[in-house]
Amino acid sequence: MKPRIAGAMTSFRFDDILIAHNRIRPMVHKTPIMRSNFIDELFGKKVFFKCEHLQKTGSFKARGAANAIKMLIDEKKSEFSVITHSSGNHGQALAWAAKQYGVPCTVVVPNDAPACKLAAMRAYGATLVECDPSERESTALKLCSQAEYEFVDPYDDYRVMAGQGTVAMEFLEQVPHLDAMLIPVGGGGLVSGMAVAVAELDPKIKIFCVEPEGKRLEDSLKSGERLWDQNAGPVDTIADGIRVLRVGTKCFPEVVRCCEKTVLTVDKKEIVRAMELIYSHLKQVVEPTGAVTLAALLKYVDLLSSYQKIGLILCGGNVDLKYLPFSRQ
Amino acid sequence: MKPRIAGAMTSFRFDDILIAHNRIRPMVHKTPIMRSNFIDELFGKKVFFKCEHLQKTGSFKARGAANAIKMLIDEKKSEFSVITHSSGNHGQALAWAAKQYGVPCTVVVPNDAPACKLAAMRAYGATLVECDPSERESTALKLCSQAEYEFVDPYDDYRVMAGQGTVAMEFLEQVPHLDAMLIPVGGGGLVSGMAVAVAELDPKIKIFCVEPEGKRLEDSLKSGERLWDQNAGPVDTIADGIRVLRVGTKCFPEVVRCCEKTVLTVDKKEIVRAMELIYSHLKQVVEPTGAVTLAALLKYVDLLSSYQKIGLILCGGNVDLKYLPFSRQ
Repeated sequence: MKPRIAGAMTSFRFDDILIAHNRIRPMVHKTPIMRSNFIDELFGKKVFFKCEHLQKTGSFKARGAANAIKMLIDEKKSEFSVITHSSGNHGQALAWAAKQYGVPCTVVVPNDAPACKLAAMRAYGATLVECDPSERESTALKLCSQAEYEFVDPYDDYRVMAGQGTVAMEFLEQVPHLDAMLIPVGGGGLVSGMAVAVAELDPKIKIFCVEPEGKRLEDSLKSGERLWDQNAGPVDTIADGIRVLRVGTKCFPEVVRCCEKTVLTVDKKEIVRAMELIYSHLKQVVEPTGAVTLAALLKYVDLLSSYQKIGLILCGGNVDLKYLPFSRQ
Repeated sequence: MKPRIAGAMTSFRFDDILIAHNRIRPMVHKTPIMRSNFIDELFGKKVFFKCEHLQKTGSFKARGAANAIKMLIDEKKSEFSVITHSSGNHGQALAWAAKQYGVPCTVVVPNDAPACKLAAMRAYGATLVECDPSERESTALKLCSQAEYEFVDPYDDYRVMAGQGTVAMEFLEQVPHLDAMLIPVGGGGLVSGMAVAVAELDPKIKIFCVEPEGKRLEDSLKSGERLWDQNAGPVDTIADGIRVLRVGTKCFPEVVRCCEKTVLTVDKKEIVRAMELIYSHLKQVVEPTGAVTLAALLKYVDLLSSYQKIGLILCGGNVDLKYLPFSRQ
């Protein structure tokens, strides 16, 4: 039995993002833009950081979750519960958004998710169900078949994509005339939402996907087809927020349509170097996934040389302080 | 020979802070205020964090240094050099401010200062002279006697105190009607400047000094005399920014006049706990000294129970990432 996706839209348009922006405004922060003279001088560019690690629940995921929950609240006549699977940030976000309206929330979590993210989900009152990392979706579907849950996918859900797209609306309002934007890609909820917004609002801006090594998004983007092996496990990366291997079926067409075909790929060392720069010069706590866009700018500075005003997303700040990757020498 | 202190004022008034505010405005940031629902709920109060770790050079010290350098620039007819002693943040700040005007800068540094702070001073072009931690002042005075330097004391200098006082002017403009303010105290430049500003602008606000264990400021405050042993070394504390034992002779009378006599004393464990809260919930990188005000609020919550709106200073963010004190268990 497939989970019921009440209120799911059948297609995805810019208007959905516009409406989501208005819908979630009272619930989420308009996150600030930060800059650093040191980083600007390092690249000889103007670099703008959109601080989604300062968003409610510590990541942009609060936007998509708030949009989905609010739509369900407006639509359902009787009480309901929500369920999702998440290694952390979407789970926190859904638990938080559900809590605002007294909606019970269950999150299926891989048993290797960061402890700080699990603790936060519990603090927002969610029921956690642990499973093997490769069995997140199947476990969630099984639970759905046993009870009446509203399923809110971490990325492959138009309500979620629309919420995440509001990051781009704010960013372009705060910094007009960017030349390029770098966006982290896991399942594709953030990049698909943002890319659709940018394509409508300022199509001259180039959108580059940033992925962890091992994802091979470029192969799929260039062929226009989702080439990933259905049985392959998650990507082995320090960036736990984007270790989902496959871009979702709803997200993928928007990424193909709106993003550059060249994908920026970063490894652990590059991510840790970028974290060091962000901690040292922006004084901001980001999780590894939150540093991948700066890691990509550091690595692909030649490829990106023609872009003067670059927007980077600091997408999350939920890092386990006991395991910060700054080595003692 | 005593160092020449050109332009040093002979007394300290609120007007000096007002003028400093106008003078340094083009050079420094108006730092943001941050808040956290989690922290507000933890205390049942409204807690406002003034983010001086996001100030130029990563601490409020940029304000005092900018004021001193700008006053010297306006006053001196010929070229000059500056010198100071500092374990880090004042040295960085003076080197940075001097560099803006092409003024050569020498900093006498204790040989146990954090490496990241020394590296930053060098990056701003300062000449560093290392010495034993107990010989900072004497080494600086000796160098002064050998060459024509303008000496800018890290705290006991009206120009510096006036610059630091601008933190309070901004804070009260951003958050009117605070009930109490907690301010870290090392040599006393920040607290004396801020306290004089607050006493003028909103004398109902109670100012509490926060000190590292071992400083015993309360004894001196209550007696109205600087009781510290002239030969005693710096305080042994993780908060390297406030390890100076004695409040300066120019700062002390202002602290006695304007601050509460009860001093809030914090130890290493309390500071690390506060850092964890700031990193986890504000997502901000602060150095240990930057966390002492929250550490004090955690420890003295009963003493401070009657104050509803509390202002805390996150005074600096220059921490060596290799030595963050979050233990692995």
